[in-house]
Amino acid sequence: MMGRGLLGIEDLGREDIELILDTADHMKEIGERDVKKVPTLRGRTIINLFFEPSTRTRTSFEIAGKRLSADVVNFSPSDSSLSKSESILDTAKTLDAMDPDAVVVRHRVAGVPKRIADVLDAPVINAGDGAHEHPTQALLDLMTVVENKGRIDGLTVTIVGDIAHSRVARSNVYAFTKMGAEVRVAGPPTMMPVEVECLGVKAFTSLREALDGADVVMALRIQRERLAGSMLPSVREYSASFGIDRAKLRFAKDDAIVMHPGPVNRGVELSHDLTDHRPSVILDQVRNGVAMRMAVLYLLAGRKRSRTEEAS
Amino acid sequence: MMGRGLLGIEDLGREDIELILDTADHMKEIGERDVKKVPTLRGRTIINLFFEPSTRTRTSFEIAGKRLSADVVNFSPSDSSLSKSESILDTAKTLDAMDPDAVVVRHRVAGVPKRIADVLDAPVINAGDGAHEHPTQALLDLMTVVENKGRIDGLTVTIVGDIAHSRVARSNVYAFTKMGAEVRVAGPPTMMPVEVECLGVKAFTSLREALDGADVVMALRIQRERLAGSMLPSVREYSASFGIDRAKLRFAKDDAIVMHPGPVNRGVELSHDLTDHRPSVILDQVRNGVAMRMAVLYLLAGRKRSRTEEAS
Amino acid sequence: MMGRGLLGIEDLGREDIELILDTADHMKEIGERDVKKVPTLRGRTIINLFFEPSTRTRTSFEIAGKRLSADVVNFSPSDSSLSKSESILDTAKTLDAMDPDAVVVRHRVAGVPKRIADVLDAPVINAGDGAHEHPTQALLDLMTVVENKGRIDGLTVTIVGDIAHSRVARSNVYAFTKMGAEVRVAGPPTMMPVEVECLGVKAFTSLREALDGADVVMALRIQRERLAGSMLPSVREYSASFGIDRAKLRFAKDDAIVMHPGPVNRGVELSHDLTDHRPSVILDQVRNGVAMRMAVLYLLAGRKRSRTEEAS
Repeated sequence: MMGRGLLGIEDLGREDIELILDTADHMKEIGERDVKKVPTLRGRTIINLFFEPSTRTRTSFEIAGKRLSADVVNFSPSDSSLSKSESILDTAKTLDAMDPDAVVVRHRVAGVPKRIADVLDAPVINAGDGAHEHPTQALLDLMTVVENKGRIDGLTVTIVGDIAHSRVARSNVYAFTKMGAEVRVAGPPTMMPVEVECLGVKAFTSLREALDGADVVMALRIQRERLAGSMLPSVREYSASFGIDRAKLRFAKDDAIVMHPGPVNRGVELSHDLTDHRPSVILDQVRNGVAMRMAVLYLLAGRKRSRTEEAS
Repeated sequence: MMGRGLLGIEDLGREDIELILDTADHMKEIGERDVKKVPTLRGRTIINLFFEPSTRTRTSFEIAGKRLSADVVNFSPSDSSLSKSESILDTAKTLDAMDPDAVVVRHRVAGVPKRIADVLDAPVINAGDGAHEHPTQALLDLMTVVENKGRIDGLTVTIVGDIAHSRVARSNVYAFTKMGAEVRVAGPPTMMPVEVECLGVKAFTSLREALDGADVVMALRIQRERLAGSMLPSVREYSASFGIDRAKLRFAKDDAIVMHPGPVNRGVELSHDLTDHRPSVILDQVRNGVAMRMAVLYLLAGRKRSRTEEAS
Repeated sequence: MMGRGLLGIEDLGREDIELILDTADHMKEIGERDVKKVPTLRGRTIINLFFEPSTRTRTSFEIAGKRLSADVVNFSPSDSSLSKSESILDTAKTLDAMDPDAVVVRHRVAGVPKRIADVLDAPVINAGDGAHEHPTQALLDLMTVVENKGRIDGLTVTIVGDIAHSRVARSNVYAFTKMGAEVRVAGPPTMMPVEVECLGVKAFTSLREALDGADVVMALRIQRERLAGSMLPSVREYSASFGIDRAKLRFAKDDAIVMHPGPVNRGVELSHDLTDHRPSVILDQVRNGVAMRMAVLYLLAGRKRSRTEEAS
């Protein structure tokens, strides 16, 4: 179904996404048991290959793998020894020779997981590559919306922030449009990708218009470094125009939920109050993240592999 | 019993401590088997959240968790991204949403584990916070004394070193006084906390007097940086006045034992000879550390949790 | 058989090596199953004590231990806190008091694993010490040659590179000569150890002569820093004289295989083409590394231990 891994939402069909969501529901039920562990991936090896530090996402994958009884090994090469693309591929091939059943890859450069997948036997799961995709984030966001709204189809989803540089935005645009939502993006003009509407979304530079009638408001994390640039707004300006608080949330539907991939820059993307309380569902997203990564690992690392083929 | 976690010895009653000591004895027996593993915490998740590096304590908790069959995940945030208290709590809440059954916290600032415990569902175990408490260290020290002396009640315990800045001293003062020992503290005047006798101990600036009749001599680790300060003695002076060697040990009882939380600055707090040989019991302390952490994890992470409550 | 650990190939007899190779074959078969895990070391604790970073070797040992169901704990002290030999031994004794069943040690100084082994109860496995030995590398190299050539006895093995500073060269010289191969070493004169022929090998400064009739060509990794020295060749010169490509490989036997401990400096020790394709067997070496480390851990950490003796 997901072919040889999970590199991006762009590659998935609606049926793929539905299968993953159904699987994640089952995994979530396991996570609510007193003994949160099943033997499904016993004897399988999962390697977390994180070239960019990300303790949150890495921990989520690690817990997910362990709840499925897999052996999880963390491998975080130091940048210095791996500056060249050649070294990255050699490292990946070396790990592949240790016969992992899945390799989870994060890298700051878009496309690296794909290049790695091209040379590995093991399925590769993209845990975030540059400004390209972060597919498990989008899948856990879908799951969280379904839990709260009962459906995706027909909803209006507004994504707010640095759309141009966000892998979370890109994966969510694919995910929600494929599942039948109307997706809007909003942010300062300098943070809007060129020809963004080719992605099938409506672009707004007015937050008020973008929120009008929204069922889901998704704020993105702002890289403060970016706001230092001369063509970009200051943190204060950004927050005034695009930060979500209860006043601005009134433009959305009465029962709109607020999402954020975390960690929140409090008072910038979201007010303190919204960071901590409903209708924000940020901790639901984190909890669903473990279930979703269990689902993806189950679907990819649980497959029987033809060792004969591999040995050739 | 320990309420919602183990934040300090100050919060414990004598019955709590006795239960923990009894549990640790049983755990120690498991650690002496050929197969040092029981399924008690199978399917439970323990997160080691160490903001301050401490490979020794972290390793002790990790081995303890694994011998109980728990899934243990190490999470060591880089200081840079977590300078603000807000970020610390957000990180802790994020981890909590992954449904751990216990979170072990070390932080260089006193009170952080308590603040984290206030916002988490999972029980929090303090693995050392600033100059405040290090409760599992004191518990393993009690255990080691009971093993060697058969009791705590009625013993004279002399703690030597930088009492003012030591979480080990503070936790041990609480632990040994609650269990009926007479506790004395000794050190240079600049290393003695103000109004130390309010803690129920006798303070000495003469090591000889402090050791007179002692059953247990506990040397603390000196932070060499502190000795550089102008009002403080040099390393040489400290060692001459408060370093323990066989000659000074003669002031204590003939069968006195010598303890140290490690790592020892050899020739400063303890002579080389005493670091390596009886009557010092330093490696017994380390061995008991694993059993004690198994006991604490068993008592806290092994409880049935009401998921209904948590989901609300 | 291996006494109290595996510190070097120099200490092993031919029968020891044959037992390890036979055990590794069995372990490799386990690694090819769909469920790559056996309960052999359940309840055993393995500590990876790596003073020098080495994600590849550490990962290989970690996966090996987990496939045998051992609890594997990584312990990587920061150099700063462990500059003195005294601290290294105290750290090792502290870990030993946590009752590991094996301690895997890497250190940049030759002899440290031996010094650690002298003070520990647990068996010590040398995972590389300075320019001294890297025994599991040599054992996996033997295994890879046997797989490809059916035997070691009577083969001609040519090791090329910085012989003087290579623990891989040293361990392989011992391993292949003990098993009956003719071993040749080749490299620039400045990279050849004094009186190398005492080791029972033939030394060459002409690659062509060294390769003549070789069954196995093993290129070593060059430390680029070393090539900066005034008495040493430049990278370009090194590559021209001692880099292996298909043209130079013609001097060896038609069916010669090419080995490298990895990671390869592509275009320096090996041409790009040879790095990626037969007759190089570099990824076979990595795959066999896991099986070989399973064998060594099984033989050393799987032994029943006398706890009575230890407690005394």
